[in-house]
Amino acid sequence: MQSHFQNLLDKVYEIHDIDKALGVLSWDKETNMPKAGTEARIQQMTTLRRLSHGKFTADEMGELIEKAANETADLPYESDEASLIRYLRRSYAEARQLPPEFVRRVSEVSGKAHPAWVEARENNDFAHFQPHLEEVLQLVKEMAELLGYEDEKYDPLLDQYEHGMKTAEVRATFNAVKEALVPLREAIVERGSQVDDGLVHQPFPVDKQKAFARYIADAVGYDFSRGHLGTVVHPFATSFSRNDARITTRWYPDFLNPSLFGTLHESGHAMYEQGTHPNLARTPLARGTSSGIHESQSRMIENVVGRSLGFWQAHYPKLQSLFPEQLGNHDVNAFYRAINKVQPSYIRVEADELTYNFHIILRFELEQAMLNGELAIADLPTAWNDKMQELLGVVPPTDTEGCLQDVHWTRPGFGYFPTYALGNLYAAQFYETAVSQNPTIAEEMAQGKTDALLTWLRKKIHQYGRKFTPAELVQKATGESLTYEPFIRYVTEKFSEIYEL
Amino acid sequence: MQSHFQNLLDKVYEIHDIDKALGVLSWDKETNMPKAGTEARIQQMTTLRRLSHGKFTADEMGELIEKAANETADLPYESDEASLIRYLRRSYAEARQLPPEFVRRVSEVSGKAHPAWVEARENNDFAHFQPHLEEVLQLVKEMAELLGYEDEKYDPLLDQYEHGMKTAEVRATFNAVKEALVPLREAIVERGSQVDDGLVHQPFPVDKQKAFARYIADAVGYDFSRGHLGTVVHPFATSFSRNDARITTRWYPDFLNPSLFGTLHESGHAMYEQGTHPNLARTPLARGTSSGIHESQSRMIENVVGRSLGFWQAHYPKLQSLFPEQLGNHDVNAFYRAINKVQPSYIRVEADELTYNFHIILRFELEQAMLNGELAIADLPTAWNDKMQELLGVVPPTDTEGCLQDVHWTRPGFGYFPTYALGNLYAAQFYETAVSQNPTIAEEMAQGKTDALLTWLRKKIHQYGRKFTPAELVQKATGESLTYEPFIRYVTEKFSEIYEL
Repeated sequence: MQSHFQNLLDKVYEIHDIDKALGVLSWDKETNMPKAGTEARIQQMTTLRRLSHGKFTADEMGELIEKAANETADLPYESDEASLIRYLRRSYAEARQLPPEFVRRVSEVSGKAHPAWVEARENNDFAHFQPHLEEVLQLVKEMAELLGYEDEKYDPLLDQYEHGMKTAEVRATFNAVKEALVPLREAIVERGSQVDDGLVHQPFPVDKQKAFARYIADAVGYDFSRGHLGTVVHPFATSFSRNDARITTRWYPDFLNPSLFGTLHESGHAMYEQGTHPNLARTPLARGTSSGIHESQSRMIENVVGRSLGFWQAHYPKLQSLFPEQLGNHDVNAFYRAINKVQPSYIRVEADELTYNFHIILRFELEQAMLNGELAIADLPTAWNDKMQELLGVVPPTDTEGCLQDVHWTRPGFGYFPTYALGNLYAAQFYETAVSQNPTIAEEMAQGKTDALLTWLRKKIHQYGRKFTPAELVQKATGESLTYEPFIRYVTEKFSEIYEL
Repeated sequence: MQSHFQNLLDKVYEIHDIDKALGVLSWDKETNMPKAGTEARIQQMTTLRRLSHGKFTADEMGELIEKAANETADLPYESDEASLIRYLRRSYAEARQLPPEFVRRVSEVSGKAHPAWVEARENNDFAHFQPHLEEVLQLVKEMAELLGYEDEKYDPLLDQYEHGMKTAEVRATFNAVKEALVPLREAIVERGSQVDDGLVHQPFPVDKQKAFARYIADAVGYDFSRGHLGTVVHPFATSFSRNDARITTRWYPDFLNPSLFGTLHESGHAMYEQGTHPNLARTPLARGTSSGIHESQSRMIENVVGRSLGFWQAHYPKLQSLFPEQLGNHDVNAFYRAINKVQPSYIRVEADELTYNFHIILRFELEQAMLNGELAIADLPTAWNDKMQELLGVVPPTDTEGCLQDVHWTRPGFGYFPTYALGNLYAAQFYETAVSQNPTIAEEMAQGKTDALLTWLRKKIHQYGRKFTPAELVQKATGESLTYEPFIRYVTEKFSEIYEL
């Protein structure tokens, strides 16, 4: 007779296959599907989602998890089996805490909030979106209660994306980051505009951009034999197995950065999933462990590697040879400075490596204020602009360029934003540790190579997938808990040099 | 309370969504997936197939079909409801006739036969494939018994692809075709090689081929706003809804025909599914009714339209402008003759419009001989070559170019081949009727336009999807049953003119 654990695995495999099929449907929807196919595709995805959700939340599943847990109780904490049981218990409990009626309301409210947001943003009309955001906030509040918490209402929301992380810890970390970075940002702005990034704003034929994107994705270690590069409007990475982890990019005909750094960013995400251990295949452990750790991998490749001088000393000649007219008269130092220009701006997704974090801290603080009833939705635009002034020293002229810029609040997804900035902090911490453990990494990086770095990442992070919580993983990899100091050191050194502070 | 019919529809929708998700996974596998992703993809597809098959073959489904049938017994034969019940009853019975154990063996035997066939074909080593073909034949025989028959053992096999068609009818039809076409083929060969097709065998840059393929697909009426063109090794068409019906093509850098006529062929298939009535959406009726009728639509667009003089008089200038060096010195008549060159050859998929049918008749006759025990597998190569001599007047120098050329016999799919030739016959019959009912069709065709033809096809064929059997559909559309005479008239007139017979 089959063990309970094997029975559990069979169920897990089945649900995983359905979820990955959903992933393929979603990928295809964004990359290839004609718009006219939307209605049928939504039906197909809804059916698969219902099947998967029904199977996972069934009483039988909970019983099977517990039977398998008993059977494997003697296995060590670090074993695949024990890790899978931990993950499933938590995930099952969470899924059962949100009643179908609530899930249905989420989908209904978001379904209406999204088009209203699109319209509001187009017309710079916050009042049009306001009632929808109020409904979303109501759902966020209910969700916090349904999920339950001990300390802060924001905790269970954050926990969905960064399991085990507490709001208080993020707040303390972000406050320290603010304290260090606001003066740095002010010093840079005070020096005046020494960096000219006009060279990345020129016409760049898209087919050559595509060729170069493939070249650098390969150069940083993204494995095309187990991947694929697609074109989309809003780039993302996704995987259907460790042997099929895809990236997407958008192409601007007269701005080079999105294709370069978008491709590198998504490559970092996909390399994480390409690096999960084969033994985790077909289980929910074969993914990145949290949004923040995932973002650390994409930011590492995009920024720590992809915006470094060594990387471009190695690869800029290739870029120049593709675009001799555009770049022939600009040397690698000019290019390096151009892609590292610091400039406080209104739009998060266009922000530079340094000021990006302020955009996140702003959202983190406003989400808490809304959740705790300290900020009425009607007052959001003013609060937004006040915080922009405080953190970035600029104020957007319209709400479209302010509190209406992100899609995130059309869903009750409070708690997600902070993981973007946590990713930056984790990345710097990982990189500093990696170099201290293996100096070859820095030597290779100075020559634009990432083999030793990738080996370290695979060994310390990628292979484990979701076996450990972010805190456990950071502890295992660096011997410490999360610290913001490596990031402060990294940006201070880098931008002091570029801006001759 | 919901009616039984509505309950049935809900089940049908669910199964349909899973099947279409499977279709997307399969499409993606052929177009975008890295090879390394195969194992996981097969697992995902197997899971979905098991889910769909389990739901469709459950006792509950059979009971629901009968309850819904009783409830809708008063509705007319032509109604969507009655048609769906007819289709589901037949399909359910068929699915239940093949026990899971048999389905498992099919998949096992085919799984081994396919790589053996690949190897045998590569090495021109029929003996290597022979034992596998013997196993496949054994399955074919069992399948015929499981499905059951009254007259001939081949009937239930054919019926799977061309419901209601009898082997005796196909045999009589094919014999008549042979009788008419063998002399025509001989006369053409006797005239000697008057047609030079060297002009289509030149270097043609692939990106321009792609641009032109999109242009002609659009020109014949394929709706790109509800479709997509992908690149694959073995072209096919597939649909995930009437609003997402896709085509695929392969590109040869120095041979123009595959991209032109492959694209037109698949466009014909996809236009059929784009034209199914919206009321049939999310049910198995939203597809072409049989392999033969489907093939009639692809052959109509590929040959009757796409190899006509009128079509190229309208569109050849565009092709010339894309390839001035290759085609600038060849007028439209030279091109028209080149794409209609008749030449008996070894390979079915490379055959011209006239001799293609002989390749099919050969397979149809050999499949029956094998099934009825008149032909031992060991004697297949000799029998193949004898029939080639009889029908085409040429004998392949190797089995690789003979009985090993097609993938079809790695699966127990006997009965499929004849539908290719039936498609040619249906196409000519439909076209002759269409023109007789609306002479504008011929006038437009002489100017390279297909609007009136497409209107006729949509009204008489496409909209019905699978509501009617092929025989019913042919009767409704043409007022007659299947007849080979229009095809004989069509090819005799066309090739007599080209070859000045």
